[in-house]
Amino acid sequence: MSAETVLSRIDASLPQALDRLIQLLRIPSISTDPAYKGDCARAADWLADELRGLGAVADVRPTPGHPMVVGHLGNSGPHILFYGHYDVQPVDPLDLWDTGPFDAVVEDTPKGRMIRARGASDDKGQLMTFIEACRAWIAEHGEMPCRVIFLLEGEEESGSPSLVPFLEQNAEELTAELALICDTGLFQSKSPAIITMLRGLLGEELTIHAASRDLHSGMYGGPAQNPIRVLARILAGLHDDHGRVTVPGFYDGVPDLPPEIAAQWQALGFDHAGFLGDVGLSVPAGEDDAPPLQQIWSRPTCEFNGITGGYTGEGFKTVLPAQASAKLSFRLVGTQDPHAIRKSFRKMVEDQLPADCSVEWKEHGASAASQMEIEHPLFEKSRAALTEEWGTPAAYAGCGGSIPIAGHFQRILGMNTMLTGFAKDDDQIHSPNEKYDVESFHKGMRSWVRLLGKLA
Amino acid sequence: MSAETVLSRIDASLPQALDRLIQLLRIPSISTDPAYKGDCARAADWLADELRGLGAVADVRPTPGHPMVVGHLGNSGPHILFYGHYDVQPVDPLDLWDTGPFDAVVEDTPKGRMIRARGASDDKGQLMTFIEACRAWIAEHGEMPCRVIFLLEGEEESGSPSLVPFLEQNAEELTAELALICDTGLFQSKSPAIITMLRGLLGEELTIHAASRDLHSGMYGGPAQNPIRVLARILAGLHDDHGRVTVPGFYDGVPDLPPEIAAQWQALGFDHAGFLGDVGLSVPAGEDDAPPLQQIWSRPTCEFNGITGGYTGEGFKTVLPAQASAKLSFRLVGTQDPHAIRKSFRKMVEDQLPADCSVEWKEHGASAASQMEIEHPLFEKSRAALTEEWGTPAAYAGCGGSIPIAGHFQRILGMNTMLTGFAKDDDQIHSPNEKYDVESFHKGMRSWVRLLGKLA
Repeated sequence: MSAETVLSRIDASLPQALDRLIQLLRIPSISTDPAYKGDCARAADWLADELRGLGAVADVRPTPGHPMVVGHLGNSGPHILFYGHYDVQPVDPLDLWDTGPFDAVVEDTPKGRMIRARGASDDKGQLMTFIEACRAWIAEHGEMPCRVIFLLEGEEESGSPSLVPFLEQNAEELTAELALICDTGLFQSKSPAIITMLRGLLGEELTIHAASRDLHSGMYGGPAQNPIRVLARILAGLHDDHGRVTVPGFYDGVPDLPPEIAAQWQALGFDHAGFLGDVGLSVPAGEDDAPPLQQIWSRPTCEFNGITGGYTGEGFKTVLPAQASAKLSFRLVGTQDPHAIRKSFRKMVEDQLPADCSVEWKEHGASAASQMEIEHPLFEKSRAALTEEWGTPAAYAGCGGSIPIAGHFQRILGMNTMLTGFAKDDDQIHSPNEKYDVESFHKGMRSWVRLLGKLA
Repeated sequence: MSAETVLSRIDASLPQALDRLIQLLRIPSISTDPAYKGDCARAADWLADELRGLGAVADVRPTPGHPMVVGHLGNSGPHILFYGHYDVQPVDPLDLWDTGPFDAVVEDTPKGRMIRARGASDDKGQLMTFIEACRAWIAEHGEMPCRVIFLLEGEEESGSPSLVPFLEQNAEELTAELALICDTGLFQSKSPAIITMLRGLLGEELTIHAASRDLHSGMYGGPAQNPIRVLARILAGLHDDHGRVTVPGFYDGVPDLPPEIAAQWQALGFDHAGFLGDVGLSVPAGEDDAPPLQQIWSRPTCEFNGITGGYTGEGFKTVLPAQASAKLSFRLVGTQDPHAIRKSFRKMVEDQLPADCSVEWKEHGASAASQMEIEHPLFEKSRAALTEEWGTPAAYAGCGGSIPIAGHFQRILGMNTMLTGFAKDDDQIHSPNEKYDVESFHKGMRSWVRLLGKLA
């Protein structure tokens, strides 16, 4: 079973593969907003149908949240699990989209052909590269060169609350030699990369309460506590003048980067000016003693993801609000303990509250960072397949994002994970006008076919 | 022409007067939101009809914003101008209202009968006390004891942008001996009060821009500027640890309170524990060296009225937003210059901006504080009328709110202003569930009848 004829088949059937992806992208499977529950279920059903179309034994498994899709394909060869997620981020601010976020289209642009829709890159387009590679392989050879467990989740963008219990309850069924996750990007939008470390994520939402109701800022301005002011003080105190996070104990478990890795990253020639310039920035804003690539890959952060309080509509309202709230996320590295940091952060906030103020908390996930074991032979096979397809050496890289499932696979299933993917830096994931290059999709499918060839 | 029979008529026709107020309250005349432009016009038409019903020569005058209602009533006697505003504040957060904000109703409650609706107290209920007093007087005596110019504005809650040009263009028609404004409250919800000083108001809105689009906090968290963080730092720096505002030059023109006024206010026996306790607070939060009554009446403030940035919906989104914004208001006293403070504030913010950030500004009004001249004989007549009606001495008081029109009357028309009103501290103006006690409405009408009696 060789890859060459399958690659030709991939090229010839690209229009049909794009049509299928467009169908999936038109399902608005926003997991974080309960209004889209039915659409998440619809996306799961659609994927289970696709897997059955490949000959897999596949079904949709209910969870307390959105369902899991599980499928089994192939009878012999190495045993791998392929993970992807069919849920997508919310779409606001909607008015900044040039096309409807779920009116998925393929566009010709000066930068090439692009698939434009929420989820095009994160993660529907990426997960479909693997499914399409399997489809083409089976069409050509009649059977797979390996055994694949598909695990497609619908809660990745909302902290994966059902994932751990699901893995625990189905540990035997879901354990393979290695997990593959296709949810990351090309290095500098050009070179393929295999991720060897992922940051963890701790999500927190706090609401500061003061007066029992909104007040008139003329009648009460002065003597009444203003929760926006209290919140601003708390947030402003979370970084020092060097960009370091001030939560007590925050840096416990943050390792120094080994010199050989620092040297390897240095050799990648990261274009930080271009990276920032693409989004209208020029000066790295993180810890002032860390190079930009380390700020993203190997240093922890505290970011403010949302803030709201008082009157935010058109015009002006002289209100002194009863409450104000913010959503924060901490990206974690090394062995930083998300639960210890949550506790320390909450205590730090509570210790600062002035008289008459209280704080209400909401948790939004807690996952530690992950470190991959690259000794498994599939890592080198993948690196070779990627290097062949892209014509440029595949790198072992870090990743600023958080894919906590890699940690869960390790901890619950004792299974190592290999992450690779074909997203570009300008894919605008989590932002308006998300897109996925047709090149990413096409060469992504071809990359998986080459890897299947090496397993055959 | 005596007041006694008119007072009986007021008592007998209270239900009809309430019905008319309910009609006016059911018109959602929110001036700050362009969606309600037609409703503002409808409220103006309704009031002009009411004035014509009293026999006034009245009409609706267009402005570049919402129209003015002008009416003339009476042929002899002292010449006064009565000012009120028919526009109301926005209603959000709508989910905290127990009844629809414009489904005005009269409710029996354990604290007495109340008129519940947006604008019940601020200012439709209050302005109708005077119109109803005139109606009863004319019904009883056939003519007014004084000449009244009615000036009813529709932009008070959005900074009165059309008012100054309108006064300038109609100065001759609108100049009287004294202006009356009914838009203030009872002292401690019990004693009538005439306001002798009003704070000014400077409204500002700032938006911090950083990246050219929303970013993923995993991919960019660290090296990319976070505008929420920048905004929080700016806001947190606007007060020092003693509650004083840090804008350079802010306290220029803030007078020390004359000892005789401080003594007079002290004698009012202000229940600051009760005032704060009514809204769930206990400790005065303003400048730590000023007594609470001075914090409200004679000290300037900087308040945050609204803040927004990033993802504020249900759940969580790991976005690093492109912008964040806040609405602020400064309450001003003495001869503080709002334009100088705006300039200094903006410079202070701009000086703090880190690399890659910019600020966008919106103005929301600028008015200096006002000081009334209480030598006009109508002040003492009003004090006597109020004292008779309420059975408790009327006080000369300060006011934390801002009614810039008093300053405009002085500057443009050379006309002194007397402010009184019947609102209570728990009227929840600018908040959900705004109400006006039927007692305030009823005794308010009776107070004006007594004043008309003293002019007869």
